[in-house]
Amino acid sequence: MTSPHTATNPTIELLESHVSVRSFTDAPVTDEMLRTVLNAARRAPTSSNWQTYSIIAVRDQAKKEKLAELAGGQRHIAQSQVFLAFAADLHRLKLATSLHGIRPAQGLEHTLTPIVDAAIVGEAAQVAAESFGLGAVMVGGMRKHPREVAALLELPPEVFVVYGMSVGWPAADPLAGGLKPRLPEELVIHHDSYSDAGAAELIEDYDSRLAAFYASQGRNLDTAAWTGPVARGSENLRFASLRDDLESLGFDFS
Amino acid sequence: MTSPHTATNPTIELLESHVSVRSFTDAPVTDEMLRTVLNAARRAPTSSNWQTYSIIAVRDQAKKEKLAELAGGQRHIAQSQVFLAFAADLHRLKLATSLHGIRPAQGLEHTLTPIVDAAIVGEAAQVAAESFGLGAVMVGGMRKHPREVAALLELPPEVFVVYGMSVGWPAADPLAGGLKPRLPEELVIHHDSYSDAGAAELIEDYDSRLAAFYASQGRNLDTAAWTGPVARGSENLRFASLRDDLESLGFDFS
Repeated sequence: MTSPHTATNPTIELLESHVSVRSFTDAPVTDEMLRTVLNAARRAPTSSNWQTYSIIAVRDQAKKEKLAELAGGQRHIAQSQVFLAFAADLHRLKLATSLHGIRPAQGLEHTLTPIVDAAIVGEAAQVAAESFGLGAVMVGGMRKHPREVAALLELPPEVFVVYGMSVGWPAADPLAGGLKPRLPEELVIHHDSYSDAGAAELIEDYDSRLAAFYASQGRNLDTAAWTGPVARGSENLRFASLRDDLESLGFDFS
Repeated sequence: MTSPHTATNPTIELLESHVSVRSFTDAPVTDEMLRTVLNAARRAPTSSNWQTYSIIAVRDQAKKEKLAELAGGQRHIAQSQVFLAFAADLHRLKLATSLHGIRPAQGLEHTLTPIVDAAIVGEAAQVAAESFGLGAVMVGGMRKHPREVAALLELPPEVFVVYGMSVGWPAADPLAGGLKPRLPEELVIHHDSYSDAGAAELIEDYDSRLAAFYASQGRNLDTAAWTGPVARGSENLRFASLRDDLESLGFDFS
């Protein structure tokens, strides 16, 4: 990916070798290691130091089974040593401001702040976990049934799980299958201003490269390996009740 | 933060020593290093491999000056070697699906997916940058005037900047002032279910510890060092026109 002359370091190499892991051994992840991972992640930036997120570490097997089901049947959640739920949390902000007799205002920015906070700390946690050789996969499917997830984890009002992460020791070498190609950088990284010059050709080229990657894994799928699933997957709104669900949990989008 | 017996590694140590850096030298950040940082970050997870984000790397001084102003007068943007804008991007998704004659559905989940994608890749980029010793600070203030930011960076419809990041070589040792304490972990990390037992006392204790930290830096502020600014800062909705702004840029919250 980078030229052989480019300087690198162990963290860059770690980031460059990220692969989502969905199959785990039954080896334990110790509480001590988990605590190191989560507290390292908690050093990540958070808007205005508001820290509007919570992390619920789920080891209870019955709860993991239920979460696997709520995510649409994602078995790795049940198989994980620990499932981390990264939640947008305005509840604690309200406790804090109530000490001054103030109720935080509602509205879109005060909903996006905790969502972005939770997303950031989750990525930091994934990097921290992988630095020990742990495997992990993020689970956006937590937004499929947010009310049921909130009830299961006994979340107070104004808290919802933005995404989760299954964590455990990889059952196989995560890099054995190689790295799935990303979109060409010309399409994603822009300089001073946005450019989509040549986008159609670059996207079609990516379709081919991704198809070749899947073929190398013995998976002969759609020849339009990126645009095909993207088109089918985005034609209908995912999680169509999300707006109602999140409003019922106390988040405001006005 | 962690017990001396806990295993660690260079990436954990890097994450544990994150400090936002707002003052930079005039030493250059090479294109090669920037490319390594951004391509390492692009290995981060992205929902369904949709990659619904773009990164605009701004080196143009006039644009950085304007962005500093749009963010509410954040001088570090103008002083940075490069300012990275992490954008939610549905424009490229639409180009991709149009190859199949499909238009992606609209609605809240298809708005949150790219916001979360952009937040995740930005955190990965911050970690990657810091692994080389670069300093960085995230800038949520990009959501203050999203239309003007979009116009300046020539974003097409259905792209907006979720947050930005000033990057450069730190003008001073970022760790010289020590690490700002985070909330006590009992308030933020939950086990199997959410708990806010003892929250008021833990929050007040944090107020005191944070006040002591600021005092150690010669800044004698509010004795309610966390809850005071949080209460004042959240009493009125930040970026009150955000909903209108993002709708006008093509994002749907229904």
